[in-house]
Amino acid sequence: MAAWAEKLAGLRGVLLDISGVLYDGGEGGGTAIPGSVDAVARLKRSGLRVRFCTNESQKTRGAQVQLMRQLGFDVSEEEVTAPAPAACQLLREQGLRPHLLVHEGIRSEFDGIDTSSPNCVVLGDAAEAFSFHNMNMAFRVLMELPKPKLIALGTGRYYKETSGLMLDVGAYVKALEYACGIQAHVVGKPSPEFFKLALRELGVEAHQAIMIGDDIVGDVGGAQRCGMRALQVRTGKFRPSDEQHPEVTADGHVDNLAEAVDLLLKHATL
Amino acid sequence: MAAWAEKLAGLRGVLLDISGVLYDGGEGGGTAIPGSVDAVARLKRSGLRVRFCTNESQKTRGAQVQLMRQLGFDVSEEEVTAPAPAACQLLREQGLRPHLLVHEGIRSEFDGIDTSSPNCVVLGDAAEAFSFHNMNMAFRVLMELPKPKLIALGTGRYYKETSGLMLDVGAYVKALEYACGIQAHVVGKPSPEFFKLALRELGVEAHQAIMIGDDIVGDVGGAQRCGMRALQVRTGKFRPSDEQHPEVTADGHVDNLAEAVDLLLKHATL
Repeated sequence: MAAWAEKLAGLRGVLLDISGVLYDGGEGGGTAIPGSVDAVARLKRSGLRVRFCTNESQKTRGAQVQLMRQLGFDVSEEEVTAPAPAACQLLREQGLRPHLLVHEGIRSEFDGIDTSSPNCVVLGDAAEAFSFHNMNMAFRVLMELPKPKLIALGTGRYYKETSGLMLDVGAYVKALEYACGIQAHVVGKPSPEFFKLALRELGVEAHQAIMIGDDIVGDVGGAQRCGMRALQVRTGKFRPSDEQHPEVTADGHVDNLAEAVDLLLKHATL
Repeated sequence: MAAWAEKLAGLRGVLLDISGVLYDGGEGGGTAIPGSVDAVARLKRSGLRVRFCTNESQKTRGAQVQLMRQLGFDVSEEEVTAPAPAACQLLREQGLRPHLLVHEGIRSEFDGIDTSSPNCVVLGDAAEAFSFHNMNMAFRVLMELPKPKLIALGTGRYYKETSGLMLDVGAYVKALEYACGIQAHVVGKPSPEFFKLALRELGVEAHQAIMIGDDIVGDVGGAQRCGMRALQVRTGKFRPSDEQHPEVTADGHVDNLAEAVDLLLKHATL
């Protein structure tokens, strides 16, 4: 792989995806990916700015951080950009009252949001709550609106738990988009708005930042479309075919976060 | 509405959608739409050929016909073109072994089909069986195949039961298509193959046939793309906005099947 020094020139900040990069989810919370706890610590000591940018919509930001800390990561809630808080901001700005089809674990993020007489639907990674009944309820709310508005907490296709691949929110977004003949408003990766929010919070420009993720489309493609560089790790939902993806070419592939950080610390001009 | 006689010239056969045209589904089976039992009887006496063309994938053809007969319709199993028997034919021809995500009520249509070591997924209108767990099972089968093959029993967006609108198989097809990055092979309306099968069974050419349905895209648009004429009834899943649909313009709108048959009997040159 030629010219890492060139590829990593001028970097000032790093956005880290969480699930599949730092740890693999599963029963009992999850398991840190070998080397990643230390990699985050080394990155934070390096002088590069670091921020976590996740599409997690099963856990509140607080619960997410608590789990990460239990797994040994040095992280605080203020360092995480996540879709639910971003969606709440949007709902408030636009005076929207959501019907929520979200995971029980994230419901409390919407405390204080008016959910009476809903005039939109918010769809998160609801997992078991993606029942036929609940999908029909969300669908009917949309169909009764003169202009159906669907807000999606991400467009993920699937994720990997220790028990196997699981359908992510994006699949269910497509189901409702098709049934209603509409397009969802996406809050989360790969929405440019969301990456821009993360960059503002990181405090660097797009051309000074690199995204490290396991999702070739959501992380790598999304970040690149915003003018960032992006590496894909070969952990989490990575599949070998991603390295020949028809639409997205990562700026580099690394086996895991530890290798990514080795490269950043070696080649980035800090 | 000008020139019904012109619009209906040269007709020799009629394809009738079932649900939403003949009856509305719901608890206890369903309710005949007023005038439709008599309309079918009059049509059959008229000299026009008549066939039923349905995307029903919750009931076997036998159970469907039994329900229709209970509601008073003159119909036999041989008069119905339905996706599950057509899919079984395809599975046999192509040596495919399906993982079935279908409604319990239609499972017996697949008796005699080898379902060991599945090399494709067949998705029907599984209704309550569209759980997160079952969708993940189907998804994992697809993702383990070198070339994932998804066979969809129709592409319906939604249907109406007495309890309200329900998501149809098409929505769940879109979810799996998106998650896997594939396109389903559709058996059922609006697939041209399926309309052609119905026309062969009806025994008339496309230009001699008219489709009567409640679905502006699946029935009307699909039939027209095959060279048939098509009327939309204002029953079932009809919505007023269908009359200004951006892509499909029906050859005519009628309040219900009874009105359609009145027009056919008055204007078609028999």
